[in-house]
Amino acid sequence: MNIATKGEGDIVDLTGEVRETLKDSGFKAGIACVFVPHTTAAVFVTENESGLRSDLVRIMEKVFPKGFGYAHNTGGDGNGHSHIRASILGQSVSVPFNDAMLDIGTWQSVVLMELDNGGRPRKLIIQLVGE
Amino acid sequence: MNIATKGEGDIVDLTGEVRETLKDSGFKAGIACVFVPHTTAAVFVTENESGLRSDLVRIMEKVFPKGFGYAHNTGGDGNGHSHIRASILGQSVSVPFNDAMLDIGTWQSVVLMELDNGGRPRKLIIQLVGE
Amino acid sequence: MNIATKGEGDIVDLTGEVRETLKDSGFKAGIACVFVPHTTAAVFVTENESGLRSDLVRIMEKVFPKGFGYAHNTGGDGNGHSHIRASILGQSVSVPFNDAMLDIGTWQSVVLMELDNGGRPRKLIIQLVGE
Repeated sequence: MNIATKGEGDIVDLTGEVRETLKDSGFKAGIACVFVPHTTAAVFVTENESGLRSDLVRIMEKVFPKGFGYAHNTGGDGNGHSHIRASILGQSVSVPFNDAMLDIGTWQSVVLMELDNGGRPRKLIIQLVGE
Repeated sequence: MNIATKGEGDIVDLTGEVRETLKDSGFKAGIACVFVPHTTAAVFVTENESGLRSDLVRIMEKVFPKGFGYAHNTGGDGNGHSHIRASILGQSVSVPFNDAMLDIGTWQSVVLMELDNGGRPRKLIIQLVGE
Repeated sequence: MNIATKGEGDIVDLTGEVRETLKDSGFKAGIACVFVPHTTAAVFVTENESGLRSDLVRIMEKVFPKGFGYAHNTGGDGNGHSHIRASILGQSVSVPFNDAMLDIGTWQSVVLMELDNGGRPRKLIIQLVGE
């Protein structure tokens, strides 16, 4: 699956896509693993609410600031902070399903967060295991 | 599985329940995925030691403090910090098993940490995949 | 699988081992779960670049410093910070595979990071599920 993010801090809700993949698969019980094969984006679970989306951006900058003199930035990309934040938030999340329905909470969404310094085309893998 | 947490920062050890679920399942080799379907609690692996439990509470408040003017809090819940901490600590953890035994380390426990501002009834899913 | 880390902050690339395990298994499609059964080491995904490796060490010390008066340290190990960092970075990561190939990005590596205050022998479990 391919998506395009709109800029740094963009949060894209993937829950609908995970549900569709499960529906089309015929799987009944198991785990859906959502994985982003990029080093400067993260996949995790959160409530997808506008205030919280801006809080996530703000707290990332407070705790893992851009101006930290990253050794990685001597390469010229200027995205040392993006890599650190991606490793902290994670790039893989697994959600159980039963009776062909995702066991996700009412307020939970599986999201991708763009952490690089601009929008990017992003690939995503939704992998189902089980029966 | 349903549990009740006793208050913010409460850490509940789930390792015994994961072992029971595995024992009752007949599965021999695979992965146990422990998932909490709530946005203000976390599931992760740690040593379950009293000093460390208080350290986890203290460091969460230092790094992701309650008084950060969360936009999410304008809704009135006052739990913006809970959401942020939950996304950072994670809501899903997978532990391998072989020979029908959990491959967890001697000092490791799978725990749920209550991050909301009070005790809550919490649902948990322990999902096994493999054979 | 057993490895020996060289000291605190040592980052060991496990990607080759995960690929070998997959190749030897005969599995075609599923999830590879990499798990470290120790409480003071972490397993996660990052770009394995020298600048970034030193950035990870530096930012861990900034955000989760050794001198935080950890209650855990009264036991004498002096590794309260190691436990906290390990719980934050995580001890389990799942990577999908298809057509018997790991779906990992060009710049991604699965790594173990030593977080205890010295090198250690470390056990690792690479568990495959799927078909």
